[in-house]
Amino acid sequence: MEADRVEKPVWIKHASQLATLSQDGKGPRVKEKMSELGIIEDGSMWLEEGVIKAVGTTAELEKKYGEREKEADIVNASGCLVTPGLVDPHTHVVYGGSREREFEMRLEGATYMEIMNAGGGIHATARMTREATEEELIEQTTWRLDSFLAHGITTVEGKSGYGMNLETELKQLRVMEKLQQTHPIDIVPTFMGAHAVPQEYKGREDEFVDRLINEMLPVVAEEKLAEFNDVFCEKGVFTPDQSERILEAGKKYGLIPKIHADEIESYGGAELAAKVGAISAEHLLKASDEGIRAMAESGVIACLLPATALYLREQAAAGRKMVDAGVPVAISTDCNPGSSPTTSMPLVMNLACILMRMTPAEALTAATYNAACAINRQDKAGSLEEGKQADVVMWDIENYQKLQYFFGVNHVKSVWKKGIRVV
Amino acid sequence: MEADRVEKPVWIKHASQLATLSQDGKGPRVKEKMSELGIIEDGSMWLEEGVIKAVGTTAELEKKYGEREKEADIVNASGCLVTPGLVDPHTHVVYGGSREREFEMRLEGATYMEIMNAGGGIHATARMTREATEEELIEQTTWRLDSFLAHGITTVEGKSGYGMNLETELKQLRVMEKLQQTHPIDIVPTFMGAHAVPQEYKGREDEFVDRLINEMLPVVAEEKLAEFNDVFCEKGVFTPDQSERILEAGKKYGLIPKIHADEIESYGGAELAAKVGAISAEHLLKASDEGIRAMAESGVIACLLPATALYLREQAAAGRKMVDAGVPVAISTDCNPGSSPTTSMPLVMNLACILMRMTPAEALTAATYNAACAINRQDKAGSLEEGKQADVVMWDIENYQKLQYFFGVNHVKSVWKKGIRVV
Ligand SMILES: [Zn+2]
Ligand SMILES: [Zn+2]
Repeated sequence: MEADRVEKPVWIKHASQLATLSQDGKGPRVKEKMSELGIIEDGSMWLEEGVIKAVGTTAELEKKYGEREKEADIVNASGCLVTPGLVDPHTHVVYGGSREREFEMRLEGATYMEIMNAGGGIHATARMTREATEEELIEQTTWRLDSFLAHGITTVEGKSGYGMNLETELKQLRVMEKLQQTHPIDIVPTFMGAHAVPQEYKGREDEFVDRLINEMLPVVAEEKLAEFNDVFCEKGVFTPDQSERILEAGKKYGLIPKIHADEIESYGGAELAAKVGAISAEHLLKASDEGIRAMAESGVIACLLPATALYLREQAAAGRKMVDAGVPVAISTDCNPGSSPTTSMPLVMNLACILMRMTPAEALTAATYNAACAINRQDKAGSLEEGKQADVVMWDIENYQKLQYFFGVNHVKSVWKKGIRVV
Repeated sequence: MEADRVEKPVWIKHASQLATLSQDGKGPRVKEKMSELGIIEDGSMWLEEGVIKAVGTTAELEKKYGEREKEADIVNASGCLVTPGLVDPHTHVVYGGSREREFEMRLEGATYMEIMNAGGGIHATARMTREATEEELIEQTTWRLDSFLAHGITTVEGKSGYGMNLETELKQLRVMEKLQQTHPIDIVPTFMGAHAVPQEYKGREDEFVDRLINEMLPVVAEEKLAEFNDVFCEKGVFTPDQSERILEAGKKYGLIPKIHADEIESYGGAELAAKVGAISAEHLLKASDEGIRAMAESGVIACLLPATALYLREQAAAGRKMVDAGVPVAISTDCNPGSSPTTSMPLVMNLACILMRMTPAEALTAATYNAACAINRQDKAGSLEEGKQADVVMWDIENYQKLQYFFGVNHVKSVWKKGIRVV
């Protein structure tokens, strides 16, 4: 995907709906604030030097920029919806290999053990990620980042976690650092050394946690390779106590906590997220009512992953209930080779409506402004406001409702990243 | 979507996998035959005069066509999967209006009656379809047909059924006839006057059935506007007796029966399909074991619609069980404005695997050869064989497994319809 390097100003005109997501007040949106999209009809934007210079009606921008019309790339957005670039706040996008053969074996009736014996599961990805060179990982990840852009996503979070040893964890984070330099998309890095217990540490989980805290975290922090610290808190993986130790240790290095919580069993993950002051808790399919209440009170963002639920044929998280309870909700692809091999945030928005009963407006907020908040990018991304990064998507449909209603289709027409058209 | 009208021969070379779907023997594929994709590695095809002239390895075609290389458009398909154009055997693609506002109202908590009072539901589409001119319907349908092509679908079935009066039913069928002339996609028309009981006939269903049989069928047949005759056999809509009358009457005019069967309740629809010799039965979410057995014995194709099940949050049809029972299975979008507003057969294939536990190979067969059989186009479409229409899709992934595994993404790279590149 080649960015058009001629950095002319861009003037988007006559958008059928310009969903700015702009509101007074900071912080992730909750309850009815999730439905306020700041829609401008016959909307217009001026993008220049990578940022948004003006947002308003076309009539307003004619007054302000009419004289400079000839300088700009004029984009006629009539009949189109225009929104902020989507933000995907939870991905495992950097990994080696691909597991379609495992997917097929499972559908052909292979048992769990047969798949493990054939080298399947997360440990297969760990092996392939350990074996891959940095260059190979960059190449494979670029394909997925290009696909993200093509689906309107201009910022993604990315997690390490397929190494579970220092060397490979650092390799994954360095791949993100390099791609951040070379790929148009913004990548926000999260350290997730505690994604699984490595096979060589089975039965000695505390020892692995010690090692992660004493050997991995200091290096990640010193090299400034991550902003967040994430842990898979789940029965049989890391206990709430172990998770808390890891997250508190990270906080000392300035790493903001995130938690994969209550995906398979109700295990106190949501409660722990509130307790340690996590910016977000992920999955939450089995979150307790108490945990949901605690998250709402502490303002922990629920990062919900309905495509993963679909792929695993699980009941999706209680998105409707969480919004109603005052939890700020974000949504994400969870892009990963095992339980959610997809890059389509548009589909995730559809599923937020279909499976989690969120409204079209809530789904869009969850995929833009609240998603930006979940990775601390709300000052740059997630809404169309003067001074913010010019990350913009033009959709080939006339309103935000249809974006969610006419489903399973990528309605993206064009994408600008920092003012440059990339799709 | 403009077809490239320079009809040079096309030589597709070096496909990573060419899934020909070619087999000895006629008729829809059942059981393990649904898994035999006729894969050629380093595959090659020569397309000329709208048809497939040769299929084989690149080495084989070099021998046969090497001398004519300069005449042809050379397409390097290395790293790509190549398949037959997908066939969508069940759509309601011709309709007026769009119902995204109803979708939103429902998610905002509106009751059924509130939606009906706001003019929602199938009768809203009936009203908007009755009110639309032929030109308006052509314009709106063209958008959807373009989207079908972009998702790799080169043949669609289309049903009337939003008129429920002669004039509008004929209008829908004539729109298909015109689009068949002007749009690259092939449209196979089905008369479905018995899609719902029109509001003006509530309580006088038999009278409507009489009218359909005596006034509508003869005109449709005389004008040769349809090949199939479909009915919505469901409690509260048309009974099995009424359905049988309608389908038997259609047979006298040469219209082949199809049945919307057992979608909401087990109602004997699958059994009736076998009894009247329907070419296919649709939906089948609640089909009885006996009905499944009867379909297997009579060779009735099960046309399964997992995107509809997802959209309605219903348990998808028992695809795995039907394949194992020897029923020939096809899949479809069911594209319609109420319960499945989508044009993505790629997503439907994904859902056939995820929700119905069909294998990647079975899903591809269900979306190509068996789908072609379900609309009597197996001699022209659904497989890559010499003499068939040159309807071909090149996918930007290397194998058929990944087409189903990496989901929610439209992997189409190029599409040829009758040998002409249309995407
Ligand atoms: Zn995750
Ligand atoms: Zn239907």
